[in-house]
Amino acid sequence: MSTTAQIGVTGLAVMGRNLARNFARNGYSVAVHNRTAAKTRSLVEDFGDEGTFVPAESAEEFVAALERPRRLVVMVKAGGPTDAVIDEFAPLLEEGDVIIDGGNAHFEDTRRREKALRERGLHFVGAGISGGEEGALHGPSIMPGGPPEAYEALRPLLESIAAKAPDGVPCTTHIGPDGAGHFVKMVHNGIEYADMQLIGEAYELLRDVGGYAPAEIAGIFRRWNEGRLDSYLIEITAEVLSHTDAETGKPFVDVVLDRAEQKGTGRWTVQTALDLGVPVSGIAEAVFARSLSGHAELREAGAGLPGPNAPALDAADAEQFADQVEQALYASKLVSYAQGWNMIQKASEEYDWDIAPGAVAAIWRAGCIIRAAFLDRVRNAFAADPGLPTLLADAEFAKEIGEAQSAWRSAVATATHRGVAVPGFAAALSYYDALRAGRLPAALTQAQRDYFGAHTYRRTDREGVFHTLWGEDRREVGAD
Amino acid sequence: MSTTAQIGVTGLAVMGRNLARNFARNGYSVAVHNRTAAKTRSLVEDFGDEGTFVPAESAEEFVAALERPRRLVVMVKAGGPTDAVIDEFAPLLEEGDVIIDGGNAHFEDTRRREKALRERGLHFVGAGISGGEEGALHGPSIMPGGPPEAYEALRPLLESIAAKAPDGVPCTTHIGPDGAGHFVKMVHNGIEYADMQLIGEAYELLRDVGGYAPAEIAGIFRRWNEGRLDSYLIEITAEVLSHTDAETGKPFVDVVLDRAEQKGTGRWTVQTALDLGVPVSGIAEAVFARSLSGHAELREAGAGLPGPNAPALDAADAEQFADQVEQALYASKLVSYAQGWNMIQKASEEYDWDIAPGAVAAIWRAGCIIRAAFLDRVRNAFAADPGLPTLLADAEFAKEIGEAQSAWRSAVATATHRGVAVPGFAAALSYYDALRAGRLPAALTQAQRDYFGAHTYRRTDREGVFHTLWGEDRREVGAD
Repeated sequence: MSTTAQIGVTGLAVMGRNLARNFARNGYSVAVHNRTAAKTRSLVEDFGDEGTFVPAESAEEFVAALERPRRLVVMVKAGGPTDAVIDEFAPLLEEGDVIIDGGNAHFEDTRRREKALRERGLHFVGAGISGGEEGALHGPSIMPGGPPEAYEALRPLLESIAAKAPDGVPCTTHIGPDGAGHFVKMVHNGIEYADMQLIGEAYELLRDVGGYAPAEIAGIFRRWNEGRLDSYLIEITAEVLSHTDAETGKPFVDVVLDRAEQKGTGRWTVQTALDLGVPVSGIAEAVFARSLSGHAELREAGAGLPGPNAPALDAADAEQFADQVEQALYASKLVSYAQGWNMIQKASEEYDWDIAPGAVAAIWRAGCIIRAAFLDRVRNAFAADPGLPTLLADAEFAKEIGEAQSAWRSAVATATHRGVAVPGFAAALSYYDALRAGRLPAALTQAQRDYFGAHTYRRTDREGVFHTLWGEDRREVGAD
Repeated sequence: MSTTAQIGVTGLAVMGRNLARNFARNGYSVAVHNRTAAKTRSLVEDFGDEGTFVPAESAEEFVAALERPRRLVVMVKAGGPTDAVIDEFAPLLEEGDVIIDGGNAHFEDTRRREKALRERGLHFVGAGISGGEEGALHGPSIMPGGPPEAYEALRPLLESIAAKAPDGVPCTTHIGPDGAGHFVKMVHNGIEYADMQLIGEAYELLRDVGGYAPAEIAGIFRRWNEGRLDSYLIEITAEVLSHTDAETGKPFVDVVLDRAEQKGTGRWTVQTALDLGVPVSGIAEAVFARSLSGHAELREAGAGLPGPNAPALDAADAEQFADQVEQALYASKLVSYAQGWNMIQKASEEYDWDIAPGAVAAIWRAGCIIRAAFLDRVRNAFAADPGLPTLLADAEFAKEIGEAQSAWRSAVATATHRGVAVPGFAAALSYYDALRAGRLPAALTQAQRDYFGAHTYRRTDREGVFHTLWGEDRREVGAD
């Protein structure tokens, strides 16, 4: 066998297979390998006419087929399987070769693997890939993290297969060293959770309070999709809501069991945000809402609890209400993106990743699940001020949220009075109000902590650390 | 030196010292040891007349002073220092001896240590201790986890030094094996975070919307403390709010910097709840509120964002509003306790701990920071039904929350319209409304997941797992 392949893909489940086809369709010669050779064979049989595939039955054959420096994409399950594949291939590789993990690894695992392989003279790139099966085939958003020289060796290939933003720019860039790419992919997924939760709340309000049928709500979402909410998730919401179940003739959404599942990246995002000390209430509420939906016994026990029972609004009021919901959805979305970017900025400092916040927005403009016109504006906000402490402080976004806030409050208050759960909308609004508050009740919290645990406090009027002798004469003493 | 001590305490910082004194004051002979002997000597000099202390300068001397089976309480910093002390003492101990870790260890560390020591024939008890310095001296709430036979060896000593509930019952019990005690202590602290956040929100509403001065709010809290909210935290809130800063003559709470700090157990609680799949939005919002308060740059950037600007209520309306706030506070508190107990119940299943939920409530009735009359009622609820899926389903609590919900909604809606952040109140109310909802928008979430990721869904009307061919003819196919 000759050394002809410019890139290799090992792990040919649907994501790996589609990624390999994407490379081949873009003119690259692709070595393909799978633990069970049947998948390799069927890939070549079914799609061999799309480009040049070099099938390999063994790891040795696979490695031998790759041009130097070898570029080897691993598309297997995150966790143990990824380590197993790395352990299998690393001994066969030579200095300067590049292993790319295109799975959904936890960024801490990627940091560990990058370090271990660097010590062996190999390059390791942890690349988050978003866009699902379709994205992998037609152009995903690709978030690679690792050594800059390894990225340079991959750049032309990744730029070829990546989605293209409306201005033609490929949706991939070097995010930063080691775990930066998988970290950013994790935050992408966290934001996706929040987006979906907010859309769910908007739907529920339009249905329960507005009195609209699913097909009518689909129309409302279609209209929204022509404005500032224009995005893939809004688009598919309209598709789902307009779909009728063939079996029962009912709206499809009504025959789907209301238990949302999750694969873990939303949970990781919140856990990591807690470690970083960054509030991500929008994502947290989305994760909690999914878990709550799955607790059948809990929901059964809560089913009888009392609540208000108001009739739906009449048509004119419903129309006005739908407009408030659009504003609440947009403002809440802004907050959850602001929280997500805070997380990226904090991690970038913490791990010395030097991530360009605007570049992340740029590569999410197409290919990934949260792709949206809106992300071009996020990119512009960071282009104008790369050190922006929060997206909400960008002049244009601040203006929009300021204009939306009154309607946002009305939508949340209406939901509150009518007994519709809006954890995402309400958390976002509370975050907004806390962010702009001159004083927070944290002063009381800190005073309580000093009272029961002598945890000390700072003063507003001078430097220092203090403690009040609560159990004695309540004198204040220095505690530096 | 003779073998005379019934218990030993190593690590004589303030918590360890007070715990040793507590044992001595209760008639036990206490071996005391510290890495630097000066602390050991000063303990005996300052408090030697309180009882029998057996000072030991070396680890060998300390161990030799203890009666068999030896009972040795480690009171050092969680993490590395705890491991170091265990490594130092374990080789000196004999089969059946008991090491008690009274620090704030993570329950996973306790599980690891218990296993390692069990394999060496030693008993390890991870005991959560709540009540701060004062509690350690006068009677804490003690939450020991570990082998039942080790607990039996400790029981009389722990029962002597523990706080006594109003009915005289000591606030300690065998929580369960290995990490169960430290787990329950962690949840205690998480609930404490939520309680403090809710109190902070109530204070802020009374101040900003009600127009009350801190001293007036202290009076309101004192009144509340005579009702169903009767608790240590409400009591000290009144103390803090009635305190005047001697230096400026201003209300003390106004000179305290509004940046709340945290030591990490709240964060651990939320991270663990996420692993367990239990929604704990009340605790999460409390942790996030503390972090947000500390982000000076973020708050500065947010300070100019627009919000409503309504004057405070007039006196009559303020009084009615204060009543709504009490109901909102009580109902939200109920929700966060319900979430905390869900966590305990889920962990008990997950780790095979067999924790008695009512027993936990019983030992939190005195000694600990969240001690409250309310906990007696929690105990009763679980006594009536140990398998209660949620506290909110207890007949008495369900009745109360049902009666409170209208005022609760009014308080949240008022805060929403007036721009006061109420993340805790609002999250609790959304949880309540989601819990009682017949249908959740999770159906839409699940349908979206099927659309973009072929993640499949279940149906409401029959068993099975399904996928709709969204990209093709939208036929439904089985996906079992």
